Amino acid sequence: MAQLDAFLHLQLDAFEPEIRGMADYCVDTTGKRIRPALVFLSGWRGEGTISPDLVRVAAVVELVHLATLVHDDIMDEAEMRRSRRTAAREFGSAAAVLLGDALFSHALNLATSFPTTEVCQAVSESTRKVCAGEIIQTLRRGSTNITLSDYRRIIDLKTAELFRVSCFLGSRIGGFSDRFVQQASQFGRHLGIAYQIYDDLADFFGNEKQIGKTLGTDLASGKITLPLLILMERLPPAQRTELVEEILGRRPHQLGERVRQMNELRIFEAVADAVRAELRSAEAVLSDFSDTTPTPLLLRLCEALRHQMAALPAVGSS
Amino acid sequence: MAQLDAFLHLQLDAFEPEIRGMADYCVDTTGKRIRPALVFLSGWRGEGTISPDLVRVAAVVELVHLATLVHDDIMDEAEMRRSRRTAAREFGSAAAVLLGDALFSHALNLATSFPTTEVCQAVSESTRKVCAGEIIQTLRRGSTNITLSDYRRIIDLKTAELFRVSCFLGSRIGGFSDRFVQQASQFGRHLGIAYQIYDDLADFFGNEKQIGKTLGTDLASGKITLPLLILMERLPPAQRTELVEEILGRRPHQLGERVRQMNELRIFEAVADAVRAELRSAEAVLSDFSDTTPTPLLLRLCEALRHQMAALPAVGSS
Repeated sequence: MAQLDAFLHLQLDAFEPEIRGMADYCVDTTGKRIRPALVFLSGWRGEGTISPDLVRVAAVVELVHLATLVHDDIMDEAEMRRSRRTAAREFGSAAAVLLGDALFSHALNLATSFPTTEVCQAVSESTRKVCAGEIIQTLRRGSTNITLSDYRRIIDLKTAELFRVSCFLGSRIGGFSDRFVQQASQFGRHLGIAYQIYDDLADFFGNEKQIGKTLGTDLASGKITLPLLILMERLPPAQRTELVEEILGRRPHQLGERVRQMNELRIFEAVADAVRAELRSAEAVLSDFSDTTPTPLLLRLCEALRHQMAALPAVGSS
Repeated sequence: MAQLDAFLHLQLDAFEPEIRGMADYCVDTTGKRIRPALVFLSGWRGEGTISPDLVRVAAVVELVHLATLVHDDIMDEAEMRRSRRTAAREFGSAAAVLLGDALFSHALNLATSFPTTEVCQAVSESTRKVCAGEIIQTLRRGSTNITLSDYRRIIDLKTAELFRVSCFLGSRIGGFSDRFVQQASQFGRHLGIAYQIYDDLADFFGNEKQIGKTLGTDLASGKITLPLLILMERLPPAQRTELVEEILGRRPHQLGERVRQMNELRIFEAVADAVRAELRSAEAVLSDFSDTTPTPLLLRLCEALRHQMAALPAVGSS
């Protein structure tokens, strides 16, 4: 990861001087580097096998992710990201639009440094899907007739696709069999869906300090995620209408009250079940490959997400 | 060009259904298709030689251009583009940010359909430069200590770069010699600079109906272009201070008065001279290639721009 960070910052030298500082800021702002980790683990052939190609592909995927964060924060009018001001707040949203573009195009430029067009093709296709997912989510914002399958389609595009391509490219560059590459890709997709559902849960039940951003932003911006979907389903009609009004922005948001209702109706458990089901699907697609080097490492990520979820303050929080 | 339009619309089938309509809208909104024309003319080997590869590369370049327009219009808070509402107005600026991203990534995805990474590499590098130019312009907005060389650097990045790469890729795919490819690229760059200076002139002296957008937007948004730069230089100190205040947004903009002063101080002629000088440079770089098939066609573009400029209402307009 240190190698990746050094490489990422080195990449920024390609930017015009005025923009380098801004790009640097974004690279610093990120945090967990989950997607690069997926690249490394999927391509892992044992100690000392993180090739420069894997580092490069990890940087490509992370730069695409950073670009989408910069653009997301503009739309969400988010103030904070990983406990720092967002690029949109720091540089203004006009500059942030373009900064995101510059990060995107640099990522794709870096992708062309591979001998074939495969990396660039996979990354640009994924990027388009990520944007499509975000657009659909944005268009649906403040609309309350979203179904579970709409929700899944959106998170499949906006989150799972980049997880999928990280595993695809990692295992591909790691030189694994086509069959493993295919299964690792599916693993990434399931993990991505699980991760996004977890993230949506944390928006209601997390700890602000720990996750580094304001809670309740999904409710405040009229974004319907799984906890809200299930809450709507379980509330009695009168209270349900109130919640709909709130999502439509016709009543002030009452985060505390909503979390209280979620506790009462055991929403945390229902959402956590969905995360666990998705993690089981992720584990299942690798069941034929328990002897392949990356498999135990990838499975550990599922474990880690289970622990992270267990650590959320859950029912006791409000 | 009809072939290109058909191809562009066909490309949009790759988009998710929700986004197709939005993308279609943008493709329709565009107009002059100057960059595709540069690709075709630079790659021209005679009647019937517009290969599918040239059409594809023209589409890539045009999609990148469309994406930058979508993002520019967000930042400029522009209402109209080619006599229609901008995508930002039509779909909201949040969706427009992402729509631009989706167009970008689709353009780069299309660029990966060539056998080597060359097209993708050239296009992603150019895209990064175009964004850099736009960022620098945005950061400088409302600042009045811009020099002529700052102005040239900005337009070189934001406009000339994509003209350059259009000629580069066109002549390359057309199979011309490395030396011609290099000169054609330089031609594109000079033509791009000339075109942008002309466009900045038209923002003060154009005819709204003819150019399909509101005049005076550069002044209104505090963007200092060549006509304003020269005007600042030539105004007596007191009036100059007034103009600076206006650019800083501390006084209301007085477009009519500014155009009157420009007429008085012969700014139109000075800017037109700059355009003509750049066109001469463009013509000069092709002087060793007068027998190469694309040369007379490319030179005709210089002539066309001279005529377009001569048709501006110039001094008589205010």
